[in-house]
Amino acid sequence: MIPSIVLVHPQMPENIGAAARAMMNFGLDTLRLVAPLAPWPHARAYDLAGHASPILDNATVFATTCEAVADCTYVYAATARSREMVKPVFTPAEAVTNIHADSAPTAILFGPERTGLTNDDVASANAIITIPTASDHTSLNIAQSVVVVAYQWFHAQLPDKYGDNLVHKSALATQAELQGFFDHLEQSLDTVDFWKVPEKKPKMWLNLRNIFARAQLTEQEVRTLHGVIAALQESTKR
Amino acid sequence: MIPSIVLVHPQMPENIGAAARAMMNFGLDTLRLVAPLAPWPHARAYDLAGHASPILDNATVFATTCEAVADCTYVYAATARSREMVKPVFTPAEAVTNIHADSAPTAILFGPERTGLTNDDVASANAIITIPTASDHTSLNIAQSVVVVAYQWFHAQLPDKYGDNLVHKSALATQAELQGFFDHLEQSLDTVDFWKVPEKKPKMWLNLRNIFARAQLTEQEVRTLHGVIAALQESTKR
Repeated sequence: MIPSIVLVHPQMPENIGAAARAMMNFGLDTLRLVAPLAPWPHARAYDLAGHASPILDNATVFATTCEAVADCTYVYAATARSREMVKPVFTPAEAVTNIHADSAPTAILFGPERTGLTNDDVASANAIITIPTASDHTSLNIAQSVVVVAYQWFHAQLPDKYGDNLVHKSALATQAELQGFFDHLEQSLDTVDFWKVPEKKPKMWLNLRNIFARAQLTEQEVRTLHGVIAALQESTKR
Repeated sequence: MIPSIVLVHPQMPENIGAAARAMMNFGLDTLRLVAPLAPWPHARAYDLAGHASPILDNATVFATTCEAVADCTYVYAATARSREMVKPVFTPAEAVTNIHADSAPTAILFGPERTGLTNDDVASANAIITIPTASDHTSLNIAQSVVVVAYQWFHAQLPDKYGDNLVHKSALATQAELQGFFDHLEQSLDTVDFWKVPEKKPKMWLNLRNIFARAQLTEQEVRTLHGVIAALQESTKR
């Protein structure tokens, strides 16, 4: 189930807008605000939200954290501070995997900029999300924390081979086309006696082919290289 | 090797500051700026950077992207737009794994707010990083993109069992302590004839123990519960 993002007493409308923008980027749509400090709605939130203004339009405002999560059955508190509370602590990657597998309505609480969540808010949550940080710099901006959790939420749902699909494979040259280029190049180099010492040719030729094999040439690039060889040979004839 | 973050023609000093803050949180320290639009250094960048002002102090400014990455042997361009270029495309998770394994100096380019990286900048990069986003909302804020990449960089270096270490295991009650509580509770319930119908006891008692077993009680909580039972029994005696 898609979790709700709950910003508890956010101080700066800019951070509400930035959080909404990240939510839109990463497929989250439910924003709840617990007694924001500045008047709501706020123009500066919309400035930062960009395309995510619908999320701000639909954001609901509550007086207390309790009311904001009343309809949720599982609540995470995003906090870096170690508290003397016994409660499961998850990284964002672990938490989103749990949330994804769970069909229960879930909320994730983020605390105000200066102080973070209160002990009471953390105590009422079922579990803690702690974003791993470099040891001495645990304090993340509230909107940046939302970015990380929203990103992880979206990322956890990608197919394993997502990255592979991004490569423009169709444009790549086939091995046959590459071989055609190699044949053309080899003939031309033979013609101009590039190798000088025949015994050195095998190693030199291997190294040369490696350069082009590594480059993952496209069909167009192979055609261009054929042209380059032809043009160079033409010039040597003159 | 720790990658350098290169912001190409950043428009808003706030975003430079926010990027630096995220870098500090996630263990990145080298920031390079290619011809920022606003004067540099800029107070509004420092406002947003928080504890990360040393990164801004040490940021180096270059006139061109080319000069900014001159000492790097591998360059990633962070861009969402599909370009008609044949170039490996990685998710942040994939890219940071590559960078981590590679000892070569690496830079990651992020483009200006309004336009993103130019085709020339992308063409000169070795590979592309595309942050997966919800389909219609591919445009991330530059600082938020840095947050995601920096977070992934840090996250990729965590031990697999990182999350487990966060739980305050020392405070948890042992099974023996839990059993001591169960014995106390069962005796007390027997005394007050809680079960009424003896045949129902096994199932009722199982359900009751489940409640407490699930709660992952601490030693202190077990002691408190012993006290609760004693107090309640005391009152029934009166």
